[in-house]
Amino acid sequence: MDLELARQLAQPANTKIILCVMDGLGGLPKQETLRSELEAADITNLDRLSVRSEVGLTVPVGPGITPGSGPGHLALFGYDPLTYDIGRGVLEAVGIDFELGPNDVAARGNFCTLDASGNISDRRAGRVATEVSTKLVERLRSEVKIPGVEIFVEPVREHRFVLVLRGEALGDAVSTTDPQHTGIPPLPARALDPLSEHTAAVVNEFVSQAHDLLKDQPQANGLMLRGFAKYPSLPQFPAVWGLRAAALAVYPMYRGLAKLTGMTALPCPGGLPDQIQQIRQHWDDYDYFFVHYKKTDAAGEDGNFEAKVHALHEFDSFVPELLSLGADVLMIGGDHSTPALMAAHSWHPVPFLLHSNFCREGNAEGFNEQQCLKGSLGVFPAKDVMPLAMAHAGRLAKYGA
Amino acid sequence: MDLELARQLAQPANTKIILCVMDGLGGLPKQETLRSELEAADITNLDRLSVRSEVGLTVPVGPGITPGSGPGHLALFGYDPLTYDIGRGVLEAVGIDFELGPNDVAARGNFCTLDASGNISDRRAGRVATEVSTKLVERLRSEVKIPGVEIFVEPVREHRFVLVLRGEALGDAVSTTDPQHTGIPPLPARALDPLSEHTAAVVNEFVSQAHDLLKDQPQANGLMLRGFAKYPSLPQFPAVWGLRAAALAVYPMYRGLAKLTGMTALPCPGGLPDQIQQIRQHWDDYDYFFVHYKKTDAAGEDGNFEAKVHALHEFDSFVPELLSLGADVLMIGGDHSTPALMAAHSWHPVPFLLHSNFCREGNAEGFNEQQCLKGSLGVFPAKDVMPLAMAHAGRLAKYGA
Repeated sequence: MDLELARQLAQPANTKIILCVMDGLGGLPKQETLRSELEAADITNLDRLSVRSEVGLTVPVGPGITPGSGPGHLALFGYDPLTYDIGRGVLEAVGIDFELGPNDVAARGNFCTLDASGNISDRRAGRVATEVSTKLVERLRSEVKIPGVEIFVEPVREHRFVLVLRGEALGDAVSTTDPQHTGIPPLPARALDPLSEHTAAVVNEFVSQAHDLLKDQPQANGLMLRGFAKYPSLPQFPAVWGLRAAALAVYPMYRGLAKLTGMTALPCPGGLPDQIQQIRQHWDDYDYFFVHYKKTDAAGEDGNFEAKVHALHEFDSFVPELLSLGADVLMIGGDHSTPALMAAHSWHPVPFLLHSNFCREGNAEGFNEQQCLKGSLGVFPAKDVMPLAMAHAGRLAKYGA
Repeated sequence: MDLELARQLAQPANTKIILCVMDGLGGLPKQETLRSELEAADITNLDRLSVRSEVGLTVPVGPGITPGSGPGHLALFGYDPLTYDIGRGVLEAVGIDFELGPNDVAARGNFCTLDASGNISDRRAGRVATEVSTKLVERLRSEVKIPGVEIFVEPVREHRFVLVLRGEALGDAVSTTDPQHTGIPPLPARALDPLSEHTAAVVNEFVSQAHDLLKDQPQANGLMLRGFAKYPSLPQFPAVWGLRAAALAVYPMYRGLAKLTGMTALPCPGGLPDQIQQIRQHWDDYDYFFVHYKKTDAAGEDGNFEAKVHALHEFDSFVPELLSLGADVLMIGGDHSTPALMAAHSWHPVPFLLHSNFCREGNAEGFNEQQCLKGSLGVFPAKDVMPLAMAHAGRLAKYGA
């Protein structure tokens, strides 16, 4: 749904919506058993709930398109991920809980190894230890000086860091300095629009000073920057849908993503028990609760079928408690598939379930890839989840007379 | 998928993709048996393969839209057929293997019969015999002279021929001269944009000289021209998808269509055995192979249910050999339906199958119109076939961070 139409149709109601995202939920059948992770898992509660719900499969971005976490979540929040884009630098920054200002330009950084001629010999600096890179980052942060620009350099892990430039009139249309190959030097940053000329010059000055400071390092004696981006001006979720929205996520990236859309992130370090407890506690303060569950994706990324099955089982055990919260609309889905078979995100549609008092039965008899095909929602774009939730919550006015 | 996005996401991989198009594949049930051509056919190999594949039904252009061969194939090659258009004149020219130059204007021609007052009495000149029309075509080609323009007139079959104008600054926005009615004279050609004024004058001069030359013919004493078109500037398939692409098609029109998209057409006059042999021989030279099978459509167009069943059986017998080629992605589908019941192309969605190592099971138990409905791909636009194939071949990068 076009967000302008959403604004027009959204109407107040005294109803609550919960969206649970099992990250990387969808899977693929194991060769030996021909059963997917969901089919192999003991998920009695989800299976039972699916019969009394509307189920289907969401297509995160488009057919064949494997989404990153940003587009996968934006779609579930109602944004067309092909229209609304979050730059890599911003995602990295929110991923480490860095508070980006509205004019900051963020970039993803990699330490690399340069040979005697200045050519890249290792694009990841031999995956330099985090303790080492953290010290280098601190040195860059304190010693690089560029007049008129405040510089933040923040460690991420191993060779990865975040650079944030804060100052007047900085643009983010700056080309990558990563040539994606070894045997040649890092590229100079180039401005891709006139407003970013100054920023490109600042970036090149940063790289030059940094290379001077790093020159005696054995591994990490160079760096590359990419994904220059400013805080995106996303239409704000609470204003568009008329929902006071809270995010319950353990990992900073997902809290950060939710904050970019205008949701309030509530602390829940202990996972599902904390998340459910926080919803209970803040029941009257919010209309919409986004619950993020990471373990399904982590296990999938590790190619660990059994661990993913176990994570599904764990989530399933919390379903009765989630139901007992008494939301008018309870949705359970995923931002994308992460089949253990592929040990990576994939393009496959993702099982989805919506439970409310106004559900139309389909023919699904369980919650998995095959059964969801028979559900009343069919295979549908993930960005349609929000209008459906709003409708079931009595929060969308009639269109036309 | 937007082709600009395709360009951005396409990534190299050492994988092979085969697309087999059974022309006019889809059908309708016969009154007496309630079974469609696919349901009546002995296609054990396809039925068996469908269980281990992702299956569904492709919508060639849009709901209710019956496609010609051009749009039907363009969609399967990833082009939105409502955006990319191949003019009728061009399709006729490539259909007879005429090598169109980039500035040529091609048109489809019909001989017609004019009465004593110059009004059309038969729009197809009584379907004049090909031997007769071929001679007339040769006469027009050699005797019509227009300064500054080279004129090609090429026979097709019966009353049909192709006119190609070659010269400087020719436009193709020229109106049809076919009034679609008898009892009135052919229309004069009119320019539909300023760049085509000269072309329209050339066309009218051609018609005038031709009518002089034909005036004593008993049947074909007039002609009409339509579908003026230049070589389309289609984004080239190999550049968009990063695939070296080969076309294995017996009929010139399908070779021509593939060539318009930048594919290389390899000779395979003997049909499937030749086509498979060529793939084997050129395995290392290409990443993508388009195999065209005509007999299903020809039988459908003839309204010959049994012949279509037989053609399906013939194709099925080659499935094991197609599988033995070892492509990473093997797809079998059609450009449109041609139900024998209708003896014509139709708008009905077309059974489709994709086989790879990353397939998610659906609920289909065979390869036909009814079973494909239960497949994991559902009913989906034919233009989504390419992104799916690319994903299954590991050739699409992740979208967004």
